[in-house]
Amino acid sequence: MVLIMGKSRVAMVGAGMTPFGRLDGKDLLDLLCEASMKAMESANAFDKSFDAIYVGNMAGGELCDMTGVASVLSDRLNMIPAGADRIENGPASGGSALRAGFAAIKGGLANLVLVVGGEKMTHVSGSRVTSTVASLTHETAEKIYGVTLPSFAGMLTRLYLEQYKYKMADITLAAVKNHRNGVNNPYAHFQKEITLEKALTAPIIADPLRLYDCCPVSDGAAAIVLTAESIAKEFSPEPVYITGSGQATDLQILSERENPLFIGAVAQSAKKAFDMAQISPKDINVAELHDAFSILEILQSESVGFFAPGEGPKALARGDTEIDGICPVNPSGGLKARGHPWGATGIAQAVEIFWQLRGEASKRQVPNEPKYGLSVNFGAFGNNVLTHIYERGG
Amino acid sequence: MVLIMGKSRVAMVGAGMTPFGRLDGKDLLDLLCEASMKAMESANAFDKSFDAIYVGNMAGGELCDMTGVASVLSDRLNMIPAGADRIENGPASGGSALRAGFAAIKGGLANLVLVVGGEKMTHVSGSRVTSTVASLTHETAEKIYGVTLPSFAGMLTRLYLEQYKYKMADITLAAVKNHRNGVNNPYAHFQKEITLEKALTAPIIADPLRLYDCCPVSDGAAAIVLTAESIAKEFSPEPVYITGSGQATDLQILSERENPLFIGAVAQSAKKAFDMAQISPKDINVAELHDAFSILEILQSESVGFFAPGEGPKALARGDTEIDGICPVNPSGGLKARGHPWGATGIAQAVEIFWQLRGEASKRQVPNEPKYGLSVNFGAFGNNVLTHIYERGG
Repeated sequence: MVLIMGKSRVAMVGAGMTPFGRLDGKDLLDLLCEASMKAMESANAFDKSFDAIYVGNMAGGELCDMTGVASVLSDRLNMIPAGADRIENGPASGGSALRAGFAAIKGGLANLVLVVGGEKMTHVSGSRVTSTVASLTHETAEKIYGVTLPSFAGMLTRLYLEQYKYKMADITLAAVKNHRNGVNNPYAHFQKEITLEKALTAPIIADPLRLYDCCPVSDGAAAIVLTAESIAKEFSPEPVYITGSGQATDLQILSERENPLFIGAVAQSAKKAFDMAQISPKDINVAELHDAFSILEILQSESVGFFAPGEGPKALARGDTEIDGICPVNPSGGLKARGHPWGATGIAQAVEIFWQLRGEASKRQVPNEPKYGLSVNFGAFGNNVLTHIYERGG
Repeated sequence: MVLIMGKSRVAMVGAGMTPFGRLDGKDLLDLLCEASMKAMESANAFDKSFDAIYVGNMAGGELCDMTGVASVLSDRLNMIPAGADRIENGPASGGSALRAGFAAIKGGLANLVLVVGGEKMTHVSGSRVTSTVASLTHETAEKIYGVTLPSFAGMLTRLYLEQYKYKMADITLAAVKNHRNGVNNPYAHFQKEITLEKALTAPIIADPLRLYDCCPVSDGAAAIVLTAESIAKEFSPEPVYITGSGQATDLQILSERENPLFIGAVAQSAKKAFDMAQISPKDINVAELHDAFSILEILQSESVGFFAPGEGPKALARGDTEIDGICPVNPSGGLKARGHPWGATGIAQAVEIFWQLRGEASKRQVPNEPKYGLSVNFGAFGNNVLTHIYERGG
């Protein structure tokens, strides 16, 4: 096959995902296959010859005894001899896999790529999940003191409340909104509303964060079919283009960061993505942010450039980030309601934007034909972040 | 920074590695840092702003409790805000990381990239190493029967001996050659010669393979600095270009492959790489093959196109693959003598080719100013293979 070198745009031409939740009886490979088949079906790509597969997965070796899962997937999906790699970047493994697929097409190494992310988590104990995530913290400056990611989020929440004079209700409103959005997402782990009152009196997880401020432990997978622009219309009359991809790292030790409430890696990855896409935050019509904890949606909505520092909760209270607001955030329900199978999340965000920009999100559809989308996938505790920008094709 | 889009060539401008072996007192991160610093020093790149880091690592989570190691490395090397991902492709993780760096530059996502691969293995039991590798086999068709990778290699050896009428000595000669080459490699795990007699009477590992037919368990890391061609000379007057990169998968279950002695993924990845580089196997002046077992050097030397099927042992016996032969293979000592820290190997192969093409390999230097190099990195048991082709710049 002749490969197309150069600056071709990268098109998303198909997308699919498994339901997220506790999926007993399906292992990691089953989940990856199911999501991949749905994306291939959506792209009418079953009889096409894929050049490459990128698998976003954080801990298949640690939790599932599955090292080398990408090679196996190529065989299982009948995609041999496509190259296949697993990309691991903690909870941003999905975003990094999407960027790997983007780079392969941009670089002329592939014309047709499957990007799939997934995680199987519910078969192990909660403490094992927590300790696996805690391995992302700094060994001697953080981990030995018993710090976990929820406790980091709790500390940031406390700092934010004090610095900007908010109450917890102002933050938890993000979780209430996302639960409400999740009701209309048939793939969401939680499809039920919660009241603010219930959330504010739920058990404490990491003070001041309570149960409903935290995302659940979920199984699931999501997949995207990417092509070079020149062949996109062979697969879909309505491709969605990835026009910006930015990635940035930051200091690992949270206490070393100059201002932990302004997440540098979000800001820098977003700047790179916006520069590449040649648009600005005000142009975005729909966004998926990485709300593993309610405070993170607020912080990211500021660091990415939607709202000024300290203004996130006001925008939330005004309804700006509602599905019918001026800047809809997490119409899918976000990590909060859709769930957060680590390696799947970055891809699931792209899947939601794909559906939203094509007007296929049914009851949770953002109105007025959104043209530009954005996703932020947050690795480790904000020290390795991916921002992607998407544009509806025509 | 302005990124260069398009079909720039990709230059290697610096390389470095740790010694391979049992490196007590150094953890995975220490090894990755040490190799990276050496590569940066070799490229005069300490004060330069890197765009991306790709870490080849197979089992840092499984064996070292280090998930998300790429993010940490960016911080430790003072490379923030460079993007950083870990690439996992079993024992070919290093080759896949090299390809990821290649794609990032080709695709205009980066101008200056660090690619580093490493593994820490000797701190756990041999049985844990073996069971981690065995997770690459097929769960129900292979693994439950107790099959390990050494036993696969033993079966292929037996088949080869019967099909082409060779004796074990004809195969083991590859290990003897590689041990001899390793004597002159100060980074090699084993720097001593072995005699054919000793090798043929050593303890059996997986009949008919004996101790010296098998690579050791080693710690180590290796790193390369890559740049876009347009800025290569800022870093080095003598860049080495990566002119071909090919990756291919094959059926996971060994018994399903039509001819297990002709390794399809090697042949297909090599064809892709040769097509991209627009040269052919006879042009190669120095090669690093993935001799995890002595039979694999023979099989790969055939499947990649150096010799016809069944002719590998004759070429070996004639001295064709010696350092001063017409097709030098594994002047570094290969996996056999240099050692095989999984994630490091694919990068260490590129490091050796870098040194060879620049005439910097001292006593193991391939004569007559080699111009073209090749490396084959073998993932799982030949079902996910990377071939890279290199060309000396001027």
